[in-house]
Amino acid sequence: MGRQKLYLEKLSHFFQIRNLLIRQGLAECLGTLILVMFGCGAVAQLVLSKGTHGMFLTVNFAFGFAATLGILVCGQISGGHLNPAVTFALCLLGRERWRKFPVYFFFQTIGAFFGAAIIFGMYYDALFDFPGAFNMSGRNFTGGIFATYPGKHLTLVNGFFDQIIGTAALIVCILAIVDPYNNPIPQGLEAFTVGFVVLVIGLSMGFNSGYAVNPARDLGPRIFTAMAGWGGEVFTARNGWFLVPTFAPFLGTIIGVVIYQLMVGFHVEGEARDKKSREEENLHLTNVSANENAKHTKDIL
Amino acid sequence: MGRQKLYLEKLSHFFQIRNLLIRQGLAECLGTLILVMFGCGAVAQLVLSKGTHGMFLTVNFAFGFAATLGILVCGQISGGHLNPAVTFALCLLGRERWRKFPVYFFFQTIGAFFGAAIIFGMYYDALFDFPGAFNMSGRNFTGGIFATYPGKHLTLVNGFFDQIIGTAALIVCILAIVDPYNNPIPQGLEAFTVGFVVLVIGLSMGFNSGYAVNPARDLGPRIFTAMAGWGGEVFTARNGWFLVPTFAPFLGTIIGVVIYQLMVGFHVEGEARDKKSREEENLHLTNVSANENAKHTKDIL
Amino acid sequence: MGRQKLYLEKLSHFFQIRNLLIRQGLAECLGTLILVMFGCGAVAQLVLSKGTHGMFLTVNFAFGFAATLGILVCGQISGGHLNPAVTFALCLLGRERWRKFPVYFFFQTIGAFFGAAIIFGMYYDALFDFPGAFNMSGRNFTGGIFATYPGKHLTLVNGFFDQIIGTAALIVCILAIVDPYNNPIPQGLEAFTVGFVVLVIGLSMGFNSGYAVNPARDLGPRIFTAMAGWGGEVFTARNGWFLVPTFAPFLGTIIGVVIYQLMVGFHVEGEARDKKSREEENLHLTNVSANENAKHTKDIL
Amino acid sequence: MGRQKLYLEKLSHFFQIRNLLIRQGLAECLGTLILVMFGCGAVAQLVLSKGTHGMFLTVNFAFGFAATLGILVCGQISGGHLNPAVTFALCLLGRERWRKFPVYFFFQTIGAFFGAAIIFGMYYDALFDFPGAFNMSGRNFTGGIFATYPGKHLTLVNGFFDQIIGTAALIVCILAIVDPYNNPIPQGLEAFTVGFVVLVIGLSMGFNSGYAVNPARDLGPRIFTAMAGWGGEVFTARNGWFLVPTFAPFLGTIIGVVIYQLMVGFHVEGEARDKKSREEENLHLTNVSANENAKHTKDIL
Repeated sequence: MGRQKLYLEKLSHFFQIRNLLIRQGLAECLGTLILVMFGCGAVAQLVLSKGTHGMFLTVNFAFGFAATLGILVCGQISGGHLNPAVTFALCLLGRERWRKFPVYFFFQTIGAFFGAAIIFGMYYDALFDFPGAFNMSGRNFTGGIFATYPGKHLTLVNGFFDQIIGTAALIVCILAIVDPYNNPIPQGLEAFTVGFVVLVIGLSMGFNSGYAVNPARDLGPRIFTAMAGWGGEVFTARNGWFLVPTFAPFLGTIIGVVIYQLMVGFHVEGEARDKKSREEENLHLTNVSANENAKHTKDIL
Repeated sequence: MGRQKLYLEKLSHFFQIRNLLIRQGLAECLGTLILVMFGCGAVAQLVLSKGTHGMFLTVNFAFGFAATLGILVCGQISGGHLNPAVTFALCLLGRERWRKFPVYFFFQTIGAFFGAAIIFGMYYDALFDFPGAFNMSGRNFTGGIFATYPGKHLTLVNGFFDQIIGTAALIVCILAIVDPYNNPIPQGLEAFTVGFVVLVIGLSMGFNSGYAVNPARDLGPRIFTAMAGWGGEVFTARNGWFLVPTFAPFLGTIIGVVIYQLMVGFHVEGEARDKKSREEENLHLTNVSANENAKHTKDIL
Repeated sequence: MGRQKLYLEKLSHFFQIRNLLIRQGLAECLGTLILVMFGCGAVAQLVLSKGTHGMFLTVNFAFGFAATLGILVCGQISGGHLNPAVTFALCLLGRERWRKFPVYFFFQTIGAFFGAAIIFGMYYDALFDFPGAFNMSGRNFTGGIFATYPGKHLTLVNGFFDQIIGTAALIVCILAIVDPYNNPIPQGLEAFTVGFVVLVIGLSMGFNSGYAVNPARDLGPRIFTAMAGWGGEVFTARNGWFLVPTFAPFLGTIIGVVIYQLMVGFHVEGEARDKKSREEENLHLTNVSANENAKHTKDIL
Repeated sequence: MGRQKLYLEKLSHFFQIRNLLIRQGLAECLGTLILVMFGCGAVAQLVLSKGTHGMFLTVNFAFGFAATLGILVCGQISGGHLNPAVTFALCLLGRERWRKFPVYFFFQTIGAFFGAAIIFGMYYDALFDFPGAFNMSGRNFTGGIFATYPGKHLTLVNGFFDQIIGTAALIVCILAIVDPYNNPIPQGLEAFTVGFVVLVIGLSMGFNSGYAVNPARDLGPRIFTAMAGWGGEVFTARNGWFLVPTFAPFLGTIIGVVIYQLMVGFHVEGEARDKKSREEENLHLTNVSANENAKHTKDIL
């Protein structure tokens, strides 16, 4: 046992990365990998089993709890964003530095890519046992396991609106959960609460196009499918639908930040500021009167 | 980053509202918006997907966790009632001032109105792709996405009774959760527990008429549907059903308050009062004997 | 507001019950009422909607979370047993006085009776709209909404065994949760964990006869159905099946207590005792040596 | 009551086992029994009711929450592994002694064996009422209730890969939850979080072969089925499939440990070590300067 501990210690020294940003990037990568692996895994299970081993509700549960687990794995190191839209919101509010945004975006997309790759490997036999799995225009097209595609009823404009609303709802809830002035939940339960947010979004906003609300979660797996046999059509399908889940979430983020700040955030923050300044004023007054007393005492003497 | 923080500070000052009641109203508005957006969104997903992307259970989950999230977003500021019946119960028990009741009711209804509007926008294409969506007497009538309508088997009397029981059950559970003398759950988990209450009510009391148990949640979206294309029939349908979910919950609240207080509340409160008065008596006795001792000592001297 | 508070204070004094056992009985009554109201309500919703508004999973969720809510409502006052088998287990282990057992059993059965009555009232129209609802031998027999009946494949012997195993499993888990020497969960989450236990029992042990595992939950509603129109057949059906959920759980309780104590309970208790006695011995030794030192010092002097 | 307590005390003394490893083994045995009893019970309920009392989601919930309950029952004594792969991972990381591994493996398998036996007894009538239940090649083969068998589309190679990925995912999440340097969740909620991990794995990785990811959970019930009437075919079926869930998880454990340590573990550990060594250095410097000061003072004197 002694030898083993020594060896582990050595390994730990050897592999330790000291650059904080890279460490955080790696953590985000693993967290997003977990999110996409479990989430897309549940879609794969639903689609490939033709409904015997899943339904839309199981996909919602999987994405929700996968978000929880992803955040738990990396939250202590990187904050557990798992989503460039969340990073973007925190940068907008000045709680994270802007240079984190591209780094996190990159590592999140990489993580999502490998999460999709793992599910592809896991369900390799099942995919090749599924007739027409790789045929974009057929009924059994399986690209929807990895990236999102719009429902038949959906126009691009409504799809854009759909992604904006979904992301705004996500951001409003997440801001309430992590707002330092509005602390509604016990420390340590943030990850679970974010999981419930993702679950509820899936339960109520998943019919139009499968609620990506996360550019990395959609882009990484889409790149993977383009490489793994579905071809470049995954980008050109439905008039370039892939641009919607890639860009609309950032617009939704801005709207979510504005709504939360206008209706709740600015007021709790202001209250905290007012309270603090009142206390400082009192302190000042006490000092002043103390000084005056001192002066007075002196005068008497 | 420095400039950004300065700018944000300025914005925060500019938009801060200092009137407490309006701030609380705004928070209730956002909370109820979240409740209705996610809840009615789940109904929309179930109805418009014809069951492929939802079932009654997903609606129950969505309303339950939406209540949790709505409370988390606004609870620190306004208490997170999201429901005029809850505000009414707390006023009845003297824990909130009566003048809060109309203000909260108003803002909760506004929030529910806009929550329905967002879902209408989100599923705009899907609604117009749904044949007969706006036809009150048809099979595909979609007004039930937003406001509640009674099942075919339900008479008005039983419907009234249904709303009374549902609200009474809700209020008994909520009173147990927030009773200052009966503190059964760890601080910070109230919102989650209320979510479970709403979930369970949906699982067991949702068949008759869709468990509104919340006048604002029903009235706001109903007004919206009247304006958005379903017409005034939403008020006249089923012999003025809309009056039931608007007024019965308040009667249910009274019954719930009475039951909880008679069977649990008065006793835990009384116990706390008895304990306190015993302590005070002891203190008094100690003082008395101390005084007597002092007198005695004096006498000796 | 001042007048309202005064009035509430007076009411509180007037209705306060000072007898602890009656107060606890009333609390158990309300808790079991909540358990049965939500639980049987979910069965009613499933049966009367013919599956459109529920499935067996929703019944499991409802009973699980209803147990949680019932415990939350009364736990501070009565301990939140909701089940004579739980009271029996705690009496067996000497943690509750035996005279509590008949009192709790009585009030729990009363609570279950009224819980069933509320659901009967709530779904009155739906029941009378259901053809053959009150016909014991028909396909649409609805007595199973309130009390349990065995599946067609089940013999009385296996049914007896089924109730014993179910109750033993329940008791093992509950004993682990409330064991004062084995404290695995944060204070305040006991009610939620018991809810999960009830949920899991429903998920895996519900097929044979609907997992009563609680004599009060089965007996109270059965008496109600006998009075409300289903008639005395509810007692004579299936060769007196009702005796199984009434008596088998107590046998299961004994087995559960023995298994838990032999495999876990006695050892954690013994460890705590050993630790304590070691500490006392150390203290004794210290005292002895201190005395000897003192004697020694004296001798020297 | 006094006599009862005395008697219980005596029993407690008599049955207390003082050997720690056996005590831990017994606890693991009970924990794994609970896991398999509830988990396989849910599969039995699904299969034997032909879907009326369960679906794949209920199996996922049952295994997830059963893991939670199993850990709660034995966690304080044995750590609540319930899975040789988890014991193996902790041994690899030097957190448990290697000699625990065979002991835990043995007792976990025994526990799983008896868990399966209890479910067999519980659903005895239902099994014998199920035509072809014991026929390996028939459509109604029920061996899958207890042990896992691969889907028709699955080759041995992909099945091996499937078990490796599933176990690696499980281990990464569990390591994050119990890592002493990366403490993401409040103490006491570990069992619940592990339950969510098991649930999510079932939601997304259960289609290929039923997500054993636990050699004891698969081997124990398989041995039981071989003895209880299904015969030796349970070992020879599908080219010796049983070897896959018995050995692949250990390979997956190694991969999971390596991934977690490389991407998160080594860095949080290193950070803690760096911080500690910096503090020690500071302390040293302070001491040195204090010494020098002292010397200096002396010199002056």
